Amino acid sequence: MKRNLYLTTIPVDEAKKIYLDALGDDISPRPEIIDVTDSLGRITAEAVYAKFSSPLYNSAAMDGIAVISSRTNWASESSPVLLRPGEDYVIVDTGDPIRKPYDAVIMAEDLQETPDGVLIRSSAPAWQHVRPLGEDIISGEMILTGHHKIRPIDIGVLLSGGVTKIAVFTQPRVGIIPTGTEIVEPYDDPKEGEIIESNSRMFEAMIRENGGIPVRYDIVRDDRDAIRESVLSALNENDMVIVNAGSSAGTEDFTVHILREIGEVFVHGVAIKPGKPVILARACGKPVVGIPGYPVSAYLAMENFVYPLLHSFTGRMESEGKTIQAVLSRRLVSSLKHREYVRVRVGRVGGRYVCAPLARGAGAAMSMVRADGFCIIPQETEGYEAGEMVSVDLFGTTEELDKTLVCIGSHDLLLDIISDLMSGESEGIRLSSTHIGSLGGLMAMKRGEAHISPSHLLDEKTGIYNESYIRSLFPGEKMVLVKAVRRIQGIIVAKGNPLGITGIEDLKRVRFVNRQRGAGTRVLLDYKLSLAGIPKEAIDGYETEAATHMAVAAQVASGEADCGMGVYSAAHAMDLDFIPVGEEEYDFVMHKESLEMPEVKCFLRLLGSEAFRSKLEELGGYTLEDPIRIIEIA
Amino acid sequence: MKRNLYLTTIPVDEAKKIYLDALGDDISPRPEIIDVTDSLGRITAEAVYAKFSSPLYNSAAMDGIAVISSRTNWASESSPVLLRPGEDYVIVDTGDPIRKPYDAVIMAEDLQETPDGVLIRSSAPAWQHVRPLGEDIISGEMILTGHHKIRPIDIGVLLSGGVTKIAVFTQPRVGIIPTGTEIVEPYDDPKEGEIIESNSRMFEAMIRENGGIPVRYDIVRDDRDAIRESVLSALNENDMVIVNAGSSAGTEDFTVHILREIGEVFVHGVAIKPGKPVILARACGKPVVGIPGYPVSAYLAMENFVYPLLHSFTGRMESEGKTIQAVLSRRLVSSLKHREYVRVRVGRVGGRYVCAPLARGAGAAMSMVRADGFCIIPQETEGYEAGEMVSVDLFGTTEELDKTLVCIGSHDLLLDIISDLMSGESEGIRLSSTHIGSLGGLMAMKRGEAHISPSHLLDEKTGIYNESYIRSLFPGEKMVLVKAVRRIQGIIVAKGNPLGITGIEDLKRVRFVNRQRGAGTRVLLDYKLSLAGIPKEAIDGYETEAATHMAVAAQVASGEADCGMGVYSAAHAMDLDFIPVGEEEYDFVMHKESLEMPEVKCFLRLLGSEAFRSKLEELGGYTLEDPIRIIEIA
Repeated sequence: MKRNLYLTTIPVDEAKKIYLDALGDDISPRPEIIDVTDSLGRITAEAVYAKFSSPLYNSAAMDGIAVISSRTNWASESSPVLLRPGEDYVIVDTGDPIRKPYDAVIMAEDLQETPDGVLIRSSAPAWQHVRPLGEDIISGEMILTGHHKIRPIDIGVLLSGGVTKIAVFTQPRVGIIPTGTEIVEPYDDPKEGEIIESNSRMFEAMIRENGGIPVRYDIVRDDRDAIRESVLSALNENDMVIVNAGSSAGTEDFTVHILREIGEVFVHGVAIKPGKPVILARACGKPVVGIPGYPVSAYLAMENFVYPLLHSFTGRMESEGKTIQAVLSRRLVSSLKHREYVRVRVGRVGGRYVCAPLARGAGAAMSMVRADGFCIIPQETEGYEAGEMVSVDLFGTTEELDKTLVCIGSHDLLLDIISDLMSGESEGIRLSSTHIGSLGGLMAMKRGEAHISPSHLLDEKTGIYNESYIRSLFPGEKMVLVKAVRRIQGIIVAKGNPLGITGIEDLKRVRFVNRQRGAGTRVLLDYKLSLAGIPKEAIDGYETEAATHMAVAAQVASGEADCGMGVYSAAHAMDLDFIPVGEEEYDFVMHKESLEMPEVKCFLRLLGSEAFRSKLEELGGYTLEDPIRIIEIA
Repeated sequence: MKRNLYLTTIPVDEAKKIYLDALGDDISPRPEIIDVTDSLGRITAEAVYAKFSSPLYNSAAMDGIAVISSRTNWASESSPVLLRPGEDYVIVDTGDPIRKPYDAVIMAEDLQETPDGVLIRSSAPAWQHVRPLGEDIISGEMILTGHHKIRPIDIGVLLSGGVTKIAVFTQPRVGIIPTGTEIVEPYDDPKEGEIIESNSRMFEAMIRENGGIPVRYDIVRDDRDAIRESVLSALNENDMVIVNAGSSAGTEDFTVHILREIGEVFVHGVAIKPGKPVILARACGKPVVGIPGYPVSAYLAMENFVYPLLHSFTGRMESEGKTIQAVLSRRLVSSLKHREYVRVRVGRVGGRYVCAPLARGAGAAMSMVRADGFCIIPQETEGYEAGEMVSVDLFGTTEELDKTLVCIGSHDLLLDIISDLMSGESEGIRLSSTHIGSLGGLMAMKRGEAHISPSHLLDEKTGIYNESYIRSLFPGEKMVLVKAVRRIQGIIVAKGNPLGITGIEDLKRVRFVNRQRGAGTRVLLDYKLSLAGIPKEAIDGYETEAATHMAVAAQVASGEADCGMGVYSAAHAMDLDFIPVGEEEYDFVMHKESLEMPEVKCFLRLLGSEAFRSKLEELGGYTLEDPIRIIEIA
């Protein structure tokens, strides 16, 4: 077992500096000449000067007639002057040249036509409605500085100024080599032990967005010679090369050895989480970056180490993304040993931004899709306390956040449906939903982190849903409960129900997967168990927790567990069988004043829409209230 | 003279509503299926659900060994447990499947190798370092909603989730027809009476930026049949068509007649300035928009009427640009009859944004290049007073504005050089320079609108530049004067000096072009005239004003004037002759505290740089102070 243990891990900024210093002029931008008509979004390599003036000559600024101003001097309302065609005036349209002896233009609207010519009723001073040569652009004038990103209007002005070719910085070609014996193309049907190759496609898009030209190579198996050959060939055809993955220190991680052979490795291992196993090297005078395999690690390695190279090659200024201050909703502990990038969802609740951490694993790519930004915990920092104000680097804009309805609480697939329907509305409102169970949602609302909380908490004493929980959590506050959906809960079992499970009693003899503490479904289970007189200890797997209905269904589907409690739609989505246990009320809790928010209004409108109703019917297992009832709870 | 006078002009928003309502489903987005790998930036046509889970199976989260957790139970520091290969463990790398009976992973770093196997010193609980099936993505889970703009990370997650094809909205094809007998392609060498066709190229870029596919047709001369034929053919091949120009009411503006024949015209003439002569029509069930010819009018017509169509076709939300509040530096008068878009430069001076109006003509395309945004004066509003707080719709970001050095005052080509040098620095600092003459610049600084003011105001009594002006304008304030550049002023004359001009005396016998009131060059002229005993009235053209040195040179080059006062570099740039009159001091005025600004520091550093020195030598006519002197004026 030969492994490449990293000697050290270097802080992010130090690693970046070492690398950029070492590369030096290897990554300097290089100019090329292209047609102005192809230059949108490219970066000027030098200042651009006008070749012609615009207008090119004195020209009519209006439709009308060109006149000799001195011959109009005595015209007035009471004594109009007659101008004769060919002699005193010529007809001009906007843009026509005004040539001597003509030196002014009178608008068509101010003329009275007669058989002999036109009558005018006021004098035209010299240069009236004439655009003098160079009024807009003067030949020799600087139109654009260097390092300028070309916009549509620039293209128009460059052409008007006689510039048809322009020097811009070249777009670097970036070779991408996916490696790994276990890796398969997305188009194949993957089997156990195979991993779908998706990173290289993400890299292609990231490189395009940053002004480079991605060149993806075929997947190379974990074979030292094959990888070496592919890297050398890619170096020959590109300005830089990315190798993914094999950058770590596993038995089959050859990249670092190969790069040491054919070039120089400046950094192996960076104090960043996720993303530690990065290789920063040079071979054949070109940068080679080894990127780790986990998607989030890969993304961060690209952002931290490949983007600066692209920006240098393309002459772009490194864009500083938008950073906001937000209240942290949960404690975040991090190691002193690295800089950690924690993905967060952000919402604007009660006039302040609140951010909630998402899954932190390097493999949790979906958390990147869901996230609104990164909360970066610096190296040498242990983390942040809940309620602390932290900086968040946003992926999007604050305008988007300001139109986001923050929903925290119990999970149900219907939230995805609402979210999708919202995206089709013209208002630009988004639903951000986080699933931490009913009670967790109400606690989040209590802390001012959510606009609405989906909840299905049964009061075992009264059999009434949610109301008593709200009263005890929000004493004296004006709350409302939106009652719109009832859904069927039950036991999710394997297709064909091979263990013959028929009800709660059977849970004693199978492997169960439970929901997390505070989840309404777990409360329901506890209630059903107590009715049946079954102690929790009798259930194998009572302590195994899954965070959503779909996660429960996935565990059953994979055979990890024999069954779990959940909603019909989750069983249906994963093609599993379902034994109904009972119907429950899935309500939405909010402060009464929130009913006035445009985001809440949109949510309620969609909840009552025909489109929502028919989508729910497709999912199955739901009953809709008609009309939706809003109950005030004081 | 047949002209199409507009019957009415309609307010912008009303015109837009009439048009969108009339088009209805003609501009609805249409789905198409494409490869996920080609989907960057496209808009999802419907929600996308995962086909596979990720990971596809229980897999190792670390490099190490897969073990049976129950067999590790008794391991501790004091009593290590020996695990035998093949029996108790198998070697795994990150991502490898963990199959029964193995149910946990121990990291390579925690193992001690022995001849018989490995020793472990702590127990491994079940599922340690194992990523369970579906940890990241669960099959059937919604990955993206509809109407979502696809990002690089989305592509990665879609592929990981087994999605290789995706439904997105089609990119509409937009036919662009440039019309006009006087229009020539940019590649030709234009003669008097010809206009370079540049709008269609700007349109191409604008359409691309908004998700459409531009299809540009050849220029069509002003011939009714030829235009009609081109429009019909473009309608056949595209989803919508743009005709430019001929949308006005001139003698040769055929577009509206043609569109009435082959379709329906909903709006002709909109209450917008610039941009009034817009045609909004439909033919063959497709939108046809007639766009006016002036570049700024064309830009605004595109933004107001074509972008909404593109957004509808592509399913994009209309992005609301960034709007800021800024203090208006000059009075802006506008008509009640239309909504006016005034281009403004914006700077952050003394903690507030200040905006200064630029040229307002519809033909002033260069003002769009220079502008930071639009100040929109609504219809039914007469305008704004100087000092009023107004809204500005920005083209870029506030981050850019916050790094902009605002320079208002005397014009010199060296400001362009500094601006270009700045663009090559890594700090992202920009120079925004506005030319309103030396005295105008000092007044702007007085009002808190500028960081620095270039000035060359001669005190005729003392022969000292600038100091007395600063003392009288800024009594009691701590000001500094940066003395860096002396430049040669003189008389700019036609190539070869055909009129034999040798000095100030000769101005009496030629046509002169002067600079505007408050310009240092005009002060210098007045001083020289008074020394020579020549009355201003004796100079033909003393009242003709040009705003910059280059504008003076342009008038001489075109023959509008025989000569004018200006700097050598302007004469040189336009290949004119130059009769030196004297050297003057071109200084930079600022508040003393401004010396601490990073933007000013960057400016001063560049002013003293070798690169600047050599560029100035190329221009000619300058002497540089070495070192730069900073004089305090109290």
